Amino acid sequence: MSEAVQTLEGWYCLHDFRTINWASWKYISEEERRQALDELQTMFAEWRQVGEKKQGSTVTYTIVGQKADIAFMHLRETLEELNELETAFNKSLFAQHTIPAYSYVSVVELSSYMAKPGTNPMEDPEILARLKPALPQTKHICFYPMNKRREGNDNWYMLSMEERRGFMRSHGMIGRSYAGRVKQIITGSVGLDDWEWGVTLFGDDPLTFKKLVYEMRFDEASARFGEFGDFYVGNLLQEDKLPGLLSI
Amino acid sequence: MSEAVQTLEGWYCLHDFRTINWASWKYISEEERRQALDELQTMFAEWRQVGEKKQGSTVTYTIVGQKADIAFMHLRETLEELNELETAFNKSLFAQHTIPAYSYVSVVELSSYMAKPGTNPMEDPEILARLKPALPQTKHICFYPMNKRREGNDNWYMLSMEERRGFMRSHGMIGRSYAGRVKQIITGSVGLDDWEWGVTLFGDDPLTFKKLVYEMRFDEASARFGEFGDFYVGNLLQEDKLPGLLSI
Amino acid sequence: MSEAVQTLEGWYCLHDFRTINWASWKYISEEERRQALDELQTMFAEWRQVGEKKQGSTVTYTIVGQKADIAFMHLRETLEELNELETAFNKSLFAQHTIPAYSYVSVVELSSYMAKPGTNPMEDPEILARLKPALPQTKHICFYPMNKRREGNDNWYMLSMEERRGFMRSHGMIGRSYAGRVKQIITGSVGLDDWEWGVTLFGDDPLTFKKLVYEMRFDEASARFGEFGDFYVGNLLQEDKLPGLLSI
Amino acid sequence: MSEAVQTLEGWYCLHDFRTINWASWKYISEEERRQALDELQTMFAEWRQVGEKKQGSTVTYTIVGQKADIAFMHLRETLEELNELETAFNKSLFAQHTIPAYSYVSVVELSSYMAKPGTNPMEDPEILARLKPALPQTKHICFYPMNKRREGNDNWYMLSMEERRGFMRSHGMIGRSYAGRVKQIITGSVGLDDWEWGVTLFGDDPLTFKKLVYEMRFDEASARFGEFGDFYVGNLLQEDKLPGLLSI
Amino acid sequence: MSEAVQTLEGWYCLHDFRTINWASWKYISEEERRQALDELQTMFAEWRQVGEKKQGSTVTYTIVGQKADIAFMHLRETLEELNELETAFNKSLFAQHTIPAYSYVSVVELSSYMAKPGTNPMEDPEILARLKPALPQTKHICFYPMNKRREGNDNWYMLSMEERRGFMRSHGMIGRSYAGRVKQIITGSVGLDDWEWGVTLFGDDPLTFKKLVYEMRFDEASARFGEFGDFYVGNLLQEDKLPGLLSI
Repeated sequence: MSEAVQTLEGWYCLHDFRTINWASWKYISEEERRQALDELQTMFAEWRQVGEKKQGSTVTYTIVGQKADIAFMHLRETLEELNELETAFNKSLFAQHTIPAYSYVSVVELSSYMAKPGTNPMEDPEILARLKPALPQTKHICFYPMNKRREGNDNWYMLSMEERRGFMRSHGMIGRSYAGRVKQIITGSVGLDDWEWGVTLFGDDPLTFKKLVYEMRFDEASARFGEFGDFYVGNLLQEDKLPGLLSI
Repeated sequence: MSEAVQTLEGWYCLHDFRTINWASWKYISEEERRQALDELQTMFAEWRQVGEKKQGSTVTYTIVGQKADIAFMHLRETLEELNELETAFNKSLFAQHTIPAYSYVSVVELSSYMAKPGTNPMEDPEILARLKPALPQTKHICFYPMNKRREGNDNWYMLSMEERRGFMRSHGMIGRSYAGRVKQIITGSVGLDDWEWGVTLFGDDPLTFKKLVYEMRFDEASARFGEFGDFYVGNLLQEDKLPGLLSI
Repeated sequence: MSEAVQTLEGWYCLHDFRTINWASWKYISEEERRQALDELQTMFAEWRQVGEKKQGSTVTYTIVGQKADIAFMHLRETLEELNELETAFNKSLFAQHTIPAYSYVSVVELSSYMAKPGTNPMEDPEILARLKPALPQTKHICFYPMNKRREGNDNWYMLSMEERRGFMRSHGMIGRSYAGRVKQIITGSVGLDDWEWGVTLFGDDPLTFKKLVYEMRFDEASARFGEFGDFYVGNLLQEDKLPGLLSI
Repeated sequence: MSEAVQTLEGWYCLHDFRTINWASWKYISEEERRQALDELQTMFAEWRQVGEKKQGSTVTYTIVGQKADIAFMHLRETLEELNELETAFNKSLFAQHTIPAYSYVSVVELSSYMAKPGTNPMEDPEILARLKPALPQTKHICFYPMNKRREGNDNWYMLSMEERRGFMRSHGMIGRSYAGRVKQIITGSVGLDDWEWGVTLFGDDPLTFKKLVYEMRFDEASARFGEFGDFYVGNLLQEDKLPGLLSI
Repeated sequence: MSEAVQTLEGWYCLHDFRTINWASWKYISEEERRQALDELQTMFAEWRQVGEKKQGSTVTYTIVGQKADIAFMHLRETLEELNELETAFNKSLFAQHTIPAYSYVSVVELSSYMAKPGTNPMEDPEILARLKPALPQTKHICFYPMNKRREGNDNWYMLSMEERRGFMRSHGMIGRSYAGRVKQIITGSVGLDDWEWGVTLFGDDPLTFKKLVYEMRFDEASARFGEFGDFYVGNLLQEDKLPGLLSI
């Protein structure tokens, strides 16, 4: 039996992708649309206030292509809060004109492959800030879930801690070379959703997502051991752009 | 031919995941919603009474994310009872405002890999209690189905009984280290549903689900032989929270 | 090239799984439901008469879980009869309140792995009876489709006839040890549907399905070569239980 | 790099599978159904005339089981003609009461594995007739798409031309032993649809489909290299049977 | 760790496949259809003007078979423009009568496997033109997404740069032998959508798509390393054919 690396967990995370039902949205009256928009803007304001009180963080993006129209990424202290938030949205007027497209449940995670021996990570303020982060508002977002492979000779979970640490070191060096251009938030989902991790990339130039993921694919940690789910790419949706998006 | 381990079976089990159709729920009149809620609360009361008479057990959770809104887990003496219960629910007013999301049919199972030789497990009151358990009402639940792999050199069913016993012993030791924090109910579904087992974890801290499943993944029994279906995670839905959940 | 085993074929078989649309069933008037039920009972009576004339056989089960509500298993002399029967059902009042869930097209099959050399199986009345059987009306049913695997070193179709015969002999011995408790009907579907065989198990105790399939999984014929589709398990639906099932 | 075998192509082919929406078909008035049937019969007549002028060929079958109700197989000179034909059908009254079930785009293909050296196949009238065939009107049809596998040691496209020719020779001998009982039309779909080939079998006894496909599965070309999609089996739907099929 | 090849990126690309809901299109009034067509033609004109100003390029094809009815391929400078264009289409009258069928997000890409050492590709006007191309208006189109495989011994990303260059050279020679008959536009989608590349072929004879893809399949780069998604094939839809297509 191989030894599991220790992980640190912070806020729970819900990625919530929705498709707008434009036909029904156009069918209702201008007055109903105005009401729905008011209610939606109130929710946005509440989410913003949660962020200001550092009790969580929410960002909203529009998704390119047919996979979804809007993506919400919510961080909160508990699964109960995420569940309430989701139910409140589902009961809203606007939600009736959206169709669930995909969702992902996870928790912000730091793994200690690179931890300095002899230190307590929970006493490190930088680590604490990364576990409960204020989400960036970059121009673009990229989300994908992933697994470490367990197939024949390419079985990540049969490697020794030393081997995994070596692979992750090289992997991390690629990530670091993109510092300042891409901010990466890793959320763990073992036991919470269908893949082992969710990767959310934030950046102002979507080409850096492409170049980062492509460069990593040649890294043995990805080449032999990475399994990837669907990729979602989007553009920042700021609160003041909501009326424009939903006007018809 | 390898020898099959003996299994002990108790109550049959139906996991029933439902998505609420909020649009239709909001569309009907307040009076109709009240009636539907009354009827649903009556069903909850009946299920509770079944539990009090020790003729079965039912718990209800809300699911986080878009996979489902409500999960019922029902244990009953026979498949006929589960079928009647499910049909009664389907005929209810509330059910008309739900959409089937996923279900799983299985039977509470204990495998005798660890059985003490020379003893009759059916005379052990602790084992009998585990075969027909009163389901816990912990704050959180986690459900996933799984198989033992049969691929190339990683074929569980080609291992000798001794090898399998060795793998399961190490596997069980991880589980035991979570005693008091996670209660695990294994249900067997070979010949009953699409995977070989269903795993239902009960606990008050969802991080323990993540840590338990992750730690086990490094265990050879999981690393080489575990195949996992979708994961559902939820929050306890107590009867007195029903009106709040369904109010609009 | 390996030699194909000879197979004997009897009646064609249609497994037809349906989900009841309870919302629409409840929406129509009591009078319309009565008419639909009358018509459905007439079809049941016709199917019963076909069985009495030994021109086919039909049994009906309710399915546990969300996969389906009702399963019909029809045996008839020709594909044309199955098609007509299916179209007649589709045109019925009741069918409008059902949603197709799954179907399977196959033909009752006996393979001659165990045939006694020098005998003509078609002169054996027992074999003839098994090719055109009156379906049992046991309390429970289990259906699943399956393939023989063709992967790397586990390629059934690259084995010699001798090897396959050896595997099937051991496999058959497990089946025989369940005689009296489980009746198994094998239908072949190569060239007719997506899997190579359909397996339908009939028995009064669903645990025997679980124990039989589990025990077989350790047999090399299944462990290395078995690929399984979805499993459906159900309870006998006798004609006189129809009004109860459909009353609201 | 291995050498690709030369292929000859004839008419383009569209397999078009449709499910009848019986609820909506029954909902419209008798007069509307009569109009829709008239229009459909006019389309059938046009397709028949195309065949008489040898500008294409169309046959229609009903499909057994829930996969579809009606299957059209259309051969035409160009993709534009198939597209127009499909659009005309989609605009028809009847089409509004059907649901697309599956379609397949391909082109009639002959591969020259068995070509006699030194001859020009396009001067062979028999070959020309096979590239633009009048489709048979046998009692039964079987359709399935397939690939040649590219996995590890079972990679068809890494074999030498000689090896592939050897495999195809043995494969072809099985096919030829069914001559007179099954007529096979191979359509190529590399670059046109999701599988590499479509196989359409025509015969008066559906058991010959089963026996042919099963026998071939033991042939190394199928056993090691064949990957199969879904199988559709149907009964001939002659024009004069249309009113009966659609009467309610 | 293997070295990633450098890529050059040009315009972002959205492939947008739509199915026409003919039932609803026929249901609305002639006047509403005329309005919807006017609006659609205005969008076509805007897209044409974008092309004339060399700020992007759009072509429209009808798809053969049930996968979709219409395919739009849009190239634009930014993801924001693609998103706006898509939202504008979704809000249009015509879009309400279409159903999303598939979409693909990518960016025009040139890889420098064949780059001449010592030259700066961004100073090469031919390369710049290929990164921001005016899309051809050939009679036919073929689209499919693809990956390079990462399985056991067939792991593209574990090859050395030299090995990959060798494979791509032979691959490119096949492509070049189709010059004049097929124009190929490669778009990269690592980090943007579910596959690594999208391949769009333009040509006047659809058989050249088939012959090109089939010939390449015997090339080791495809035979061992190519994984392919769904294939879409279509016919050019010129603006002046729109009224005909949508007339009923």
